[in-house]
Amino acid sequence: MGEGVYVIGVGQTKFDRFDGTKGRPYIPVHKLGAEAILKAIQDAEKHGPFDRTKIDYSYCAIVFSGYMQGPGQLALRELGLLGRVPVENVKNACASGTGAVHEVCQDIAAGLYDIGLAFGMEQLSGRRGALPLGVGLDPEATLGMAMTAKYAMRARRHMFKYGTKIEQLAEVVVQSRDHASRNPYAMLRDKVSIEDVLSSRMIADPLTLFQCCPSNDGAAAVILASEKIAKEFENPIKIETSVLISGNYPSRPTEGGIESYESLARLMDILYKKSNLTPKDISFAEVHDAFSIGAIIAVECSKFCPKGEGGKFFEEGHTKIDGDKPINPSGGLLSCGHPLGATGVRQVVEAVWQLRRDPEIKDRQVKDAEIAVTETLGGGVTGMDVAAAGGIILSNRIKW
Amino acid sequence: MGEGVYVIGVGQTKFDRFDGTKGRPYIPVHKLGAEAILKAIQDAEKHGPFDRTKIDYSYCAIVFSGYMQGPGQLALRELGLLGRVPVENVKNACASGTGAVHEVCQDIAAGLYDIGLAFGMEQLSGRRGALPLGVGLDPEATLGMAMTAKYAMRARRHMFKYGTKIEQLAEVVVQSRDHASRNPYAMLRDKVSIEDVLSSRMIADPLTLFQCCPSNDGAAAVILASEKIAKEFENPIKIETSVLISGNYPSRPTEGGIESYESLARLMDILYKKSNLTPKDISFAEVHDAFSIGAIIAVECSKFCPKGEGGKFFEEGHTKIDGDKPINPSGGLLSCGHPLGATGVRQVVEAVWQLRRDPEIKDRQVKDAEIAVTETLGGGVTGMDVAAAGGIILSNRIKW
Repeated sequence: MGEGVYVIGVGQTKFDRFDGTKGRPYIPVHKLGAEAILKAIQDAEKHGPFDRTKIDYSYCAIVFSGYMQGPGQLALRELGLLGRVPVENVKNACASGTGAVHEVCQDIAAGLYDIGLAFGMEQLSGRRGALPLGVGLDPEATLGMAMTAKYAMRARRHMFKYGTKIEQLAEVVVQSRDHASRNPYAMLRDKVSIEDVLSSRMIADPLTLFQCCPSNDGAAAVILASEKIAKEFENPIKIETSVLISGNYPSRPTEGGIESYESLARLMDILYKKSNLTPKDISFAEVHDAFSIGAIIAVECSKFCPKGEGGKFFEEGHTKIDGDKPINPSGGLLSCGHPLGATGVRQVVEAVWQLRRDPEIKDRQVKDAEIAVTETLGGGVTGMDVAAAGGIILSNRIKW
Repeated sequence: MGEGVYVIGVGQTKFDRFDGTKGRPYIPVHKLGAEAILKAIQDAEKHGPFDRTKIDYSYCAIVFSGYMQGPGQLALRELGLLGRVPVENVKNACASGTGAVHEVCQDIAAGLYDIGLAFGMEQLSGRRGALPLGVGLDPEATLGMAMTAKYAMRARRHMFKYGTKIEQLAEVVVQSRDHASRNPYAMLRDKVSIEDVLSSRMIADPLTLFQCCPSNDGAAAVILASEKIAKEFENPIKIETSVLISGNYPSRPTEGGIESYESLARLMDILYKKSNLTPKDISFAEVHDAFSIGAIIAVECSKFCPKGEGGKFFEEGHTKIDGDKPINPSGGLLSCGHPLGATGVRQVVEAVWQLRRDPEIKDRQVKDAEIAVTETLGGGVTGMDVAAAGGIILSNRIKW
């Protein structure tokens, strides 16, 4: 226990709709997965002596998949790795990707093996009502308490309790699109104004269309290694800590009210404590902005600003790429889109590119970035909290 | 790495159809999961100082589930463990349950934590065509190459190549039902004759209805602990080794022909090698008999008998509870039914009961049982091999 864990290769596909309609190509989900893995392999090969057949174990995050297929297996088969690399398919709703990375991190930290692969992939385009699902087990969801409705209630409550303004909610999207305009892998890359956001179609008052992340398709992959292996690479990024918790999932609102997430606050506390870091130490964050209000709650739960001041924090621009606490330099879920299993892995890919000053992200480079945190929240159909929360802290402070 | 791992508590529900029709109760899948976990907790409490809130981590195996729910979370919530015990939901088709147990085993072996929970749960009743699924990605499955068809082809090939008789296939079922008649948790408990099996409805020639495992509902749970914790318990069972591999999943038949499983043979070789044991050392096995021919292939791949002689091996009775190599004392998938995520965990529950001479299984106790192996195969819709294979060797040879 306690061995160092490092990222030695990352890759992702464009996040978009690959459903074969409207002139878009159809790409099956396992081919997206294979593309991301191949890019991560090539990235590792570029920076050190890497042999793909030496990957010891892998986790594939995917929420929607053919039941009897091994979805991760189909991706590995594309690369000739099947029968060589074991794969465990994991899911924890929107936190699935972070979970996959976490599993590899803890395995390597424990000395189970030296090289692990975490990948996430998802194809949501063509599926209707992906987010409202959960119906059947839960009468609330069946009656319309879909994700959008719940986040709208969170937003209303936040506005009521703290005086958060709809313009502040809109500002989250304005910044997200500005960041995404510099990210070729993002789906929505047109810059927008507060006016544009507020005048887009109303989905669940006060959340307009632009304040809801698109459901789309994509994949991302991360190759992790023990210190022994990582030492032979040019620019490894260190995993400071990784955590996966189960949320409180009660039928009552969480403690502290629905305008917050008990689970996210708890997750961040554990991350800070385990890594011996404080909110001040974090250079930038990739947070779970499935809806505009999500980003506001995230900066509060991460203690980047006091509770209730998340709206102001965005309004004042601290969260821009050139601000003092950039949030979602990738454009986040709001602009990249949210192919469930892929999202948490994509966040880590972004963090790694940022921390190694990769040419890949030169237009959106966070200056002097040293420490990053990524987090996702999973589930939340039943009750007002989440099913799972996962987070990872990475840094480029390498001391061999 | 290399710490001892022990089972300190096991539990399972009855495997049956809990779908609310024909006078049967409706029990949602997470309540089945909770019931199995609670039984495992009570089992641990009975044999040592156990505090359920001290479970460090858990894996839940489930194949079919509400997408946005955390299925494992819903089970933990029933027991007040949510927000305390992290849960990773895993799936590898029919090998999901074995995978969940394996993940906990390797975590504890690596010293990641001291107490882990592996559970599996599934509700297939009411679902049509659970096994043929995979349609969409795979044209063969869409055209009717469902599991039953593939196993029928395996059986025909085995008969052609080795002279295996349909009466030998039927004998597998006769023994399965005889074992199940002593297992109150099994679904099909009436003893049958070779005649009964062969005259049951034809499903896919030569496989008649009784030669196909029923799709049903159920859950099973296993609590594992490090040596430090296990020492305080009365009758822990040792995990000798656990393995999860990805299968070869090609569009061509596997090497050696479709009458065998390259992946299962490979899995067993790894299990024997890692545990420093031979087929001779195994007292009994719980194998993946989704169809009668599956059990015959399994005893061959496990090297309990030479290749091609699996039919004769059953016919000669080696495989009966009082034989020299009992197979599926529980009744196996053919009689217990096969709620996908639960099956691999249930096999471990059976192995533990047998190895500790638990009163629970007094009518089907394998005499002098010391070492057991469990194995499941997952997937197999695409191509003629499987997506994943998992196996676990357990023993009651405890030396502190």
